Amino acid sequence: MLPFIRSDLAQLTAYTPHPNSTDGKPIESVIDRLDTNESPFDLPSELKQKLALVYQETIETNRYPDGGHATLKEAIAEYVNESANLTQGAIAPNQISVGNGSDELIRSLLIATCLRGEGSILVANPTFSMYGILAQTLGIPVVTVGRTSEFEIDSVAAQTAIETTRTPPIRVVFVVHPNSPTGNALTTAEIAWLRSLPQDILVVIDEAYFEFSQTSVVGELSQKPNWVVLRTFSKAFRLAALRVGYAIASPEITTVLEKVRLPYNLPSFSQAAAILALQQRHLLLQLIALICEERTKLTQALTQYSVLKVNESAANFIYIQTSHQAQHSELLPKLAQQLRCSGTIIRSLNGGLRITVGSPAENLRTLERLQVAFVKWNER
Amino acid sequence: MLPFIRSDLAQLTAYTPHPNSTDGKPIESVIDRLDTNESPFDLPSELKQKLALVYQETIETNRYPDGGHATLKEAIAEYVNESANLTQGAIAPNQISVGNGSDELIRSLLIATCLRGEGSILVANPTFSMYGILAQTLGIPVVTVGRTSEFEIDSVAAQTAIETTRTPPIRVVFVVHPNSPTGNALTTAEIAWLRSLPQDILVVIDEAYFEFSQTSVVGELSQKPNWVVLRTFSKAFRLAALRVGYAIASPEITTVLEKVRLPYNLPSFSQAAAILALQQRHLLLQLIALICEERTKLTQALTQYSVLKVNESAANFIYIQTSHQAQHSELLPKLAQQLRCSGTIIRSLNGGLRITVGSPAENLRTLERLQVAFVKWNER
Repeated sequence: MLPFIRSDLAQLTAYTPHPNSTDGKPIESVIDRLDTNESPFDLPSELKQKLALVYQETIETNRYPDGGHATLKEAIAEYVNESANLTQGAIAPNQISVGNGSDELIRSLLIATCLRGEGSILVANPTFSMYGILAQTLGIPVVTVGRTSEFEIDSVAAQTAIETTRTPPIRVVFVVHPNSPTGNALTTAEIAWLRSLPQDILVVIDEAYFEFSQTSVVGELSQKPNWVVLRTFSKAFRLAALRVGYAIASPEITTVLEKVRLPYNLPSFSQAAAILALQQRHLLLQLIALICEERTKLTQALTQYSVLKVNESAANFIYIQTSHQAQHSELLPKLAQQLRCSGTIIRSLNGGLRITVGSPAENLRTLERLQVAFVKWNER
Repeated sequence: MLPFIRSDLAQLTAYTPHPNSTDGKPIESVIDRLDTNESPFDLPSELKQKLALVYQETIETNRYPDGGHATLKEAIAEYVNESANLTQGAIAPNQISVGNGSDELIRSLLIATCLRGEGSILVANPTFSMYGILAQTLGIPVVTVGRTSEFEIDSVAAQTAIETTRTPPIRVVFVVHPNSPTGNALTTAEIAWLRSLPQDILVVIDEAYFEFSQTSVVGELSQKPNWVVLRTFSKAFRLAALRVGYAIASPEITTVLEKVRLPYNLPSFSQAAAILALQQRHLLLQLIALICEERTKLTQALTQYSVLKVNESAANFIYIQTSHQAQHSELLPKLAQQLRCSGTIIRSLNGGLRITVGSPAENLRTLERLQVAFVKWNER
């Protein structure tokens, strides 16, 4: 062990990017990457061409990026207000902070609140693993509670945890709306519980999949000085390669986020891409309807298998479990393995499988390959 | 004050990106940005065109970047070995970690070593301010010592600080080689002192300006399990807009850096740009000689003013002071202000002025405008 490295880091395993990707080994036939909830569609080629021209004509590669993000923040505020139909309590640019993906914003929020032994965080599993992983890299304790069979947060356990955790007290609650990997949006009861939390607890509501669910809490932000909403350009806006996320919060919280972040955190090309994507949002978001239709079709088709428990999803992925886990504990890992061998990569998480809704062709292949996998399973 | 925000963050001021930039106000005539040590030259237009094509043809904007950076790390290792003429103790790709600028790597090093009250850091001022600022955002104590009149580290004070600081002990020493803002490379004596530090102290040697100084300590890394060298693509490689830095260290330290970093920290376009820049390094680095010649000319011209103390520089900037600070305390701020009004932006730092070596035309304008500024000063 290196003597200058924190002792608590030794046990920590790094987050493995693309954990189900090919690991350098060739996979037969077409590879459908349905494991990371990306959009199946690249930007239209005319938009890529336009962005390439913006780079060549307006970006000086040798100059540091705009470290203030003024233009991008204005465009984001306008989109947020439009997307949530906000007239009262509209979001201003000084309520936006932009990050190198939402990951950077999650880290900044953790740094701003919990370091120096000042706070723990609360998450309800299963949920997005990054909150816990980033907290651990910072030496911040993670308190976990469970969820009901319908994946609602166990709010009784959560409430108890908040009231009894003292070393150190819970200072941040992270939720995803809709949740990953399970796909359920926050219920009225869950939102009521979040509203009831005391003002000395920061509530982070990650709306990474907002464009697919079309339900948001941004309308409440003006009443909630302890809420932060996270959004991303990586999903519906198809910019995962370029890493742009943003936080929406009170000007006071935003000031702290700006103070904590790296001064030049967002490359000029990424800023240009996000601005262009917002200008072209009506074009880019047109495909959301298609993905939601495909989600419905995929859900219905999967429901044909009585051994599967298929969860309703408000996002661009579907989470499946087995209806009789005890009897069929081997089923899901085998299905995932078989799909992988035939060229469809999905994600095994928390005893279930998360399948990203792909293009119509990809989804057809998923179903065909799943059918073959079930035949093999029944022949075993 | 927000109750969920760390109390020690309140006093902290954010790093202001481009502190001497235009603040949105128009400035007369041509603006020469000589305040952030960027290269004065963009990539050649044929290279920008090539990079634009790489984006259009090979980057899927909707897919997350390669989170392992394998291709880029191989190319960096090759360049590092070539640049330091390493045959013995050559650097392998598993000794490279890549960051969203060196800033991210500095933050990762701080996170990995000093959090949870486990360590303080030591810096010798004046030096790059980001070490102290990032430490403060993480609640990590910063111990500072001074430098001699020739800007050598006060190693007696530094040694005493290391021996006596206990709450918490010093775990990381940050140095820049050559130093910013003063431009001096580490001396033999300074390197000997760094070698003498105990193995439970991490020594970070930031070689951001290596290509201008052509002196490096990477050849010693194989003997030094507690040393990390930082480098960047933002200066000599002209990629400041795209934010790519890298660390060179033992495989053990590299593993920790990989564990702590954000999993998708580097946008695909930035990775592609860095790979292309390395492929074209002989073309891109040709201009280093020109910048070094310009540095010599600029130094000689500035030396004409007997009231200025012009420091020798091994980097792409020159640090000037006044030879009689007490008598002329107003001089340097007035010169900077006058230069700014005439369109040349330089940086006021630690009572001196730091002037980036620009293009030949920019440097000529700097000297002309400085002459005018001196005339005004003498007429006051």
